[in-house]
Amino acid sequence: MLSKLEIHFKEDNELHSNMGSLFHGALIENIPNDYATKLHQGGLKPFTQSLLKNDEGFYWEITTTTKESYQNIVEPLLRINSIYIKKINKEIEFKKKAVETISKDDFIREKLFLKNPNKYITLEFISPTAFKSQDIYLNIPTSRLIIQSLLNKLDAYSDNYEFHSAELIENLENIIFFANYKLFSTNFHVEGQKIPSYRGEITISVNGPPHLVSLVHLLISFGEYSGVGMKTSLGMGKIRKKGSEQWIPKNTM
Amino acid sequence: MLSKLEIHFKEDNELHSNMGSLFHGALIENIPNDYATKLHQGGLKPFTQSLLKNDEGFYWEITTTTKESYQNIVEPLLRINSIYIKKINKEIEFKKKAVETISKDDFIREKLFLKNPNKYITLEFISPTAFKSQDIYLNIPTSRLIIQSLLNKLDAYSDNYEFHSAELIENLENIIFFANYKLFSTNFHVEGQKIPSYRGEITISVNGPPHLVSLVHLLISFGEYSGVGMKTSLGMGKIRKKGSEQWIPKNTM
Repeated sequence: MLSKLEIHFKEDNELHSNMGSLFHGALIENIPNDYATKLHQGGLKPFTQSLLKNDEGFYWEITTTTKESYQNIVEPLLRINSIYIKKINKEIEFKKKAVETISKDDFIREKLFLKNPNKYITLEFISPTAFKSQDIYLNIPTSRLIIQSLLNKLDAYSDNYEFHSAELIENLENIIFFANYKLFSTNFHVEGQKIPSYRGEITISVNGPPHLVSLVHLLISFGEYSGVGMKTSLGMGKIRKKGSEQWIPKNTM
Repeated sequence: MLSKLEIHFKEDNELHSNMGSLFHGALIENIPNDYATKLHQGGLKPFTQSLLKNDEGFYWEITTTTKESYQNIVEPLLRINSIYIKKINKEIEFKKKAVETISKDDFIREKLFLKNPNKYITLEFISPTAFKSQDIYLNIPTSRLIIQSLLNKLDAYSDNYEFHSAELIENLENIIFFANYKLFSTNFHVEGQKIPSYRGEITISVNGPPHLVSLVHLLISFGEYSGVGMKTSLGMGKIRKKGSEQWIPKNTM
């Protein structure tokens, strides 16, 4: 089961974009102790949360990638109408909540068998994104880093599927190209530290057979729930997939 | 010997930024036949030429990295006052020329032993840049791609030095970080084809001992003459190095 919860606030004067990790702390305070302990045991986290900003102001987006994480993270948030942020000693009141859920089987089936899938896929990196590879932090993406991260996450949260293989990654790396991009470095702030990262937009083209194009659509759509790269539970690596999933003649990027 | 020749035009109404390869053709017409034949034999070319644009309009920049290429490419251009561009059937008149030369030994000595070298170095990619690695074209840089390309070029044009080694590249890759960047995809136009490439700016930080920081200054300064990446003789991969070479306390990027 995949879920996305969006929470808008009554007031957001005291918020700023470096507070993602404070909301992470508040979120952890609101979930059952045994589940919080389990989350602390390391490994990939089955949720993301980010404090984001659009034209209307700040909002909090929480996604989960398993039924267990939905029940332990999203459901408690659905029961409350404000959250206490320790660092600023302030109760932040919610204005509205919107939640969407989808069964993972349905989601995978739908994306994996697209008809005439669009070979151009646009990813917007809406929160600072970075990768860790062989103990080195990387603040600029390659197609391999993106695909590898998403395959790892998809496999970690999918009991019934196993997509990841060295061969598949190499296959995909060879057919994915950054057709169009604008990227810039930035920093993600967490606990007084700055993590070098990037934001921006990439339109990739997938120059392969339809089933592989579909698989890339699946991966990137899944990325909206799992995030991409490192520290996604603290607010990094939030992506949006843009554009049509269907190939339309004379489609442009 | 390194040289840089800048040629400004009396009129530039008929020029546009996709004409770099036409100027390449005109340049080849103006050099001695035997040297042109030699250039055609492949391998790294000891010159770059790009049609660039600044606030004053288009100008033509030609750089050379050996004495032989200076004598055969720059000297003929210093003797003429216009150049015929076949494709538009037009003689383009020169307004002014400026040439700078420096001995390669002096250049290398000066850059290689900087006092308190600035660990932040800014590269501007002022013409579309791309790399070829294992037969794949890459339109986004990594520190390894940049350093490897510059080391290859420096070695190719330096009889008295040999910088390149697998160990050095790995050393440099591990201490060079993209501290700040803005990059965007673009295309380079050559003979009706578009080569996916990028432009933009990167400030790298070199987190190593002064002699390695100096070496990176040398490489990037040399890159102003050699270009970086592929098809530099056709106008791609033109870079500018910006910022101070000396580390100043409280230096900012």
